[in-house]
Amino acid sequence: MSEIGFIGLGKMGGNMVHRICRDSEHEVVAFDFDEGAVAGAVKNGARGASSPADLVKKLKAPRMVWIMVPAGDPTEQTVQKLAKLLEKGDTIVDGGNSKWTDDKRRAKELSKQGLHYVDVGVSGGVWGIEVGYCMMVGGPPAAVKRLAPILDVLAPTTSEDSVAAIGERGWMRFGGAGAGHYVKMVHNGVEYGLMQAYAEGFDVFDKSEYELDNAKIAHLWNQGSVVRSWLCELAARAFEADGNELEAIEGYTEDSGEGRWTIAEATERDVPTPVITASLYERLSSRGNGEFAHRVLAALRNQFGGHAVKPAAQAKPAAGAKQSGRSPSGSKQSGEKRR
Amino acid sequence: MSEIGFIGLGKMGGNMVHRICRDSEHEVVAFDFDEGAVAGAVKNGARGASSPADLVKKLKAPRMVWIMVPAGDPTEQTVQKLAKLLEKGDTIVDGGNSKWTDDKRRAKELSKQGLHYVDVGVSGGVWGIEVGYCMMVGGPPAAVKRLAPILDVLAPTTSEDSVAAIGERGWMRFGGAGAGHYVKMVHNGVEYGLMQAYAEGFDVFDKSEYELDNAKIAHLWNQGSVVRSWLCELAARAFEADGNELEAIEGYTEDSGEGRWTIAEATERDVPTPVITASLYERLSSRGNGEFAHRVLAALRNQFGGHAVKPAAQAKPAAGAKQSGRSPSGSKQSGEKRR
Repeated sequence: MSEIGFIGLGKMGGNMVHRICRDSEHEVVAFDFDEGAVAGAVKNGARGASSPADLVKKLKAPRMVWIMVPAGDPTEQTVQKLAKLLEKGDTIVDGGNSKWTDDKRRAKELSKQGLHYVDVGVSGGVWGIEVGYCMMVGGPPAAVKRLAPILDVLAPTTSEDSVAAIGERGWMRFGGAGAGHYVKMVHNGVEYGLMQAYAEGFDVFDKSEYELDNAKIAHLWNQGSVVRSWLCELAARAFEADGNELEAIEGYTEDSGEGRWTIAEATERDVPTPVITASLYERLSSRGNGEFAHRVLAALRNQFGGHAVKPAAQAKPAAGAKQSGRSPSGSKQSGEKRR
Repeated sequence: MSEIGFIGLGKMGGNMVHRICRDSEHEVVAFDFDEGAVAGAVKNGARGASSPADLVKKLKAPRMVWIMVPAGDPTEQTVQKLAKLLEKGDTIVDGGNSKWTDDKRRAKELSKQGLHYVDVGVSGGVWGIEVGYCMMVGGPPAAVKRLAPILDVLAPTTSEDSVAAIGERGWMRFGGAGAGHYVKMVHNGVEYGLMQAYAEGFDVFDKSEYELDNAKIAHLWNQGSVVRSWLCELAARAFEADGNELEAIEGYTEDSGEGRWTIAEATERDVPTPVITASLYERLSSRGNGEFAHRVLAALRNQFGGHAVKPAAQAKPAAGAKQSGRSPSGSKQSGEKRR
């Protein structure tokens, strides 16, 4: 029986605590700034903590604390705070979507005070509580070994064949600090490409001369076709829930960084990644970015060929024409539909 | 019990005849120009035919004849030949990878003499004999209905849930002539994109600072991750069979047309398909095409910036520098590796 602290009880962390408490004898001490989330975890069998310090106090040394908060500042601050509370021999596990280079830096810093750092890239989304989570792990072998019983219960229940093939259940250690988030980063880059490939196919169907039922196509494709996949199953669900035209869905897609990090790493290593890159660009376009390039295109074509330009649907103040970066605000207008 | 003629007993046709004979009471009359293939089909339970005319003679009217030969000329000639042998009320089924516009033309021509034409896009490859084939069908409802018992045994055995969702087993009729091959064409375009997305991800891993085991990553990704898919299972198999670097595999990939037809159709309908298009372009590049553009790039960079050009590894006669179109000949040299 293992014992672990959990900080961050949102969609992912809350479900993971639930799965551990439900499916194992392991003990979880859980904290979140949202007291309701802590109460939920307690209802599911965890012990609640009122603060990070209280959480650390309630764990026996050597401690393991799993951080499941948004990547970037929230994770960084939580790591820094925990580092001050923990003792030599304790382990911090970052289960969020941190950049692998941050993992390397943190692991190095923490090792100076004798703390271990394990990075876990977690895939599976909200379905993980039932299916299990696919986990890509980096960090020192001893710390990962101590974490293994927790990973085992979080992972999907795999067949004996799979265990034989990968030597574990649905998780694997890929190397030292950052290796887990590195493999997860590229996983997400690939995911962008897969999603965009399906999206383009269904867009062709949408404009086709045939009257095609996208949900049925997605369902059929999952019956033995080469493109069968979990994402294709989700496509079937989406078309069933939201209709053949997805009328209720705005074509607006965020990204949480892994795609652009994949492309940055690929560029750094001279690896051409046209599909992953095009997929990120489509996400940027989906937010209205690229709109200014479209104006430039129209203006240039007008300049050399005298092709008519359409006056903008509504005159906007100059500032309003600015592209947003990663923020959705003010960038959703995509101009007229092409057809 | 149904009766069907099969022309073309290659990897696909031969396996399909085998599956029908093994798993049903249906009768198959089989022909191929390769007598050995006919003998194989007979061993599997089919009746052999010595010619298309003999095959037609051995079937009771109204006949159904399934053509499973390469798309393009072989299929066209077989259809024309059969059209002369068949009678009003008979049905020709094209299970190959014909272009949907050819289906429309053929269906129209054949209908003049009272023949029915059904197009079936078949996915599943060599695994289909065990898994079953995913089939996308177009053609007149009555002819498809008569073909249904054959499609039922060729299709994967699906759960009752799936039957409820798509109203059939692992096949579906999507509309009139060409609809089946249309959906299959886009299926293949999507397939290109999926394959390229995985390929790029593994290329990043290959150049990474971590020592990564691609087979294990692919295996792990199939344990509950968002990118789990049949193609990801095949990736695991490939890396296991051919090693982490795939040393024995030449990076050369053909295409059989569906990808470029998807892009042509998308262009015709004003649908941007950056990922599917980039994926086709990578296949073209994999055959050494695009090499001349690389020379132009190098030459232009030299012109404006005085950047050093590398002399060609071996001087080639001018004709040798020509890009091949779809033929592999003379186009495999890809120049030096970038790193």
